[in-house]
Amino acid sequence: MTSRAYTFTAGEHGEWCIQRIDTVSGEGLAPAARLAVSNTLAKAADGAWSLCGMLSNERYVTRPEKSALLALPPATAPTRAALIPLRKSAAWWAMTQDERRAIFEAQSHHIAIGLELGAGIERRLHHCRDLSDDAPFDFLTWFEYAPEDEARFDALLARLRASEEWRFVEREVDIRLIRTE
Amino acid sequence: MTSRAYTFTAGEHGEWCIQRIDTVSGEGLAPAARLAVSNTLAKAADGAWSLCGMLSNERYVTRPEKSALLALPPATAPTRAALIPLRKSAAWWAMTQDERRAIFEAQSHHIAIGLELGAGIERRLHHCRDLSDDAPFDFLTWFEYAPEDEARFDALLARLRASEEWRFVEREVDIRLIRTE
Repeated sequence: MTSRAYTFTAGEHGEWCIQRIDTVSGEGLAPAARLAVSNTLAKAADGAWSLCGMLSNERYVTRPEKSALLALPPATAPTRAALIPLRKSAAWWAMTQDERRAIFEAQSHHIAIGLELGAGIERRLHHCRDLSDDAPFDFLTWFEYAPEDEARFDALLARLRASEEWRFVEREVDIRLIRTE
Repeated sequence: MTSRAYTFTAGEHGEWCIQRIDTVSGEGLAPAARLAVSNTLAKAADGAWSLCGMLSNERYVTRPEKSALLALPPATAPTRAALIPLRKSAAWWAMTQDERRAIFEAQSHHIAIGLELGAGIERRLHHCRDLSDDAPFDFLTWFEYAPEDEARFDALLARLRASEEWRFVEREVDIRLIRTE
């Protein structure tokens, strides 16, 4: 059985070299040299910081959208990665499912932007909001791609950050990584 | 700040007397005399069993449905309760949001049944699926009502258990309780 739990620990160890840590909104995260990704909920005691999340069921995507996303070409030789932890505001979480979906897709075109620019970019969404009352982020988004796809990935992020949905993002840190093992 | 975490511990202690524990589907739960409900994630070491869950955002309800649900009369003197832990099948969780919503409401009328029969029945939904990989249930549903509303509550459950949605329930235990403090 594959665990759905992932822990990202920044410090002196790990297969990813931290290239930069940019604070996009809200409080940042401490600098560190390397990032270890483990498929467990075990926090390393000696890390600069540690973030946990669980893979879960999808909450917004419809069947035709899911089929289209699955048809995107996968990443080839993904030696670059981005870890982007996000927290959304209380106003976002107070909305009902239909209201969130309307902002997510009808107004912000989140999935359409992903379909337009997401070829070769692997994505994994980890949920942390329901793991504890004081989780510092709601989601840990994780992307892997080849070096030549980074500019398109940046364009994808820029489009999302300019969307209505991002008005509800109150904390966001953008951590870029290079695989060294 | 109010914690969103709840733990239900069956054993010798607690403000609720366990009237009966019925296994509806799948594996049951061990008998016990009393149930303690605490607003934390702390498991009691000496209980017969202990279940944890977190309040979360709503995943299916639309704004008009939410308004109608909020307009239902509240419970008066709720000295009866039911704890009904549920686990849904892998087939349920493999569906996309639109497919789950179609079964939940268009085919099973989950919210419509609640609106028709739910007056005076307080409901709280705790999520446990994303708390760990081996959570025994996906949800802990909790209801409080006055003794005279129990027959209507039973009718509500019977309607839901006969619905398309319940074909995806693979474990369900029905625990009835009387408040003694």
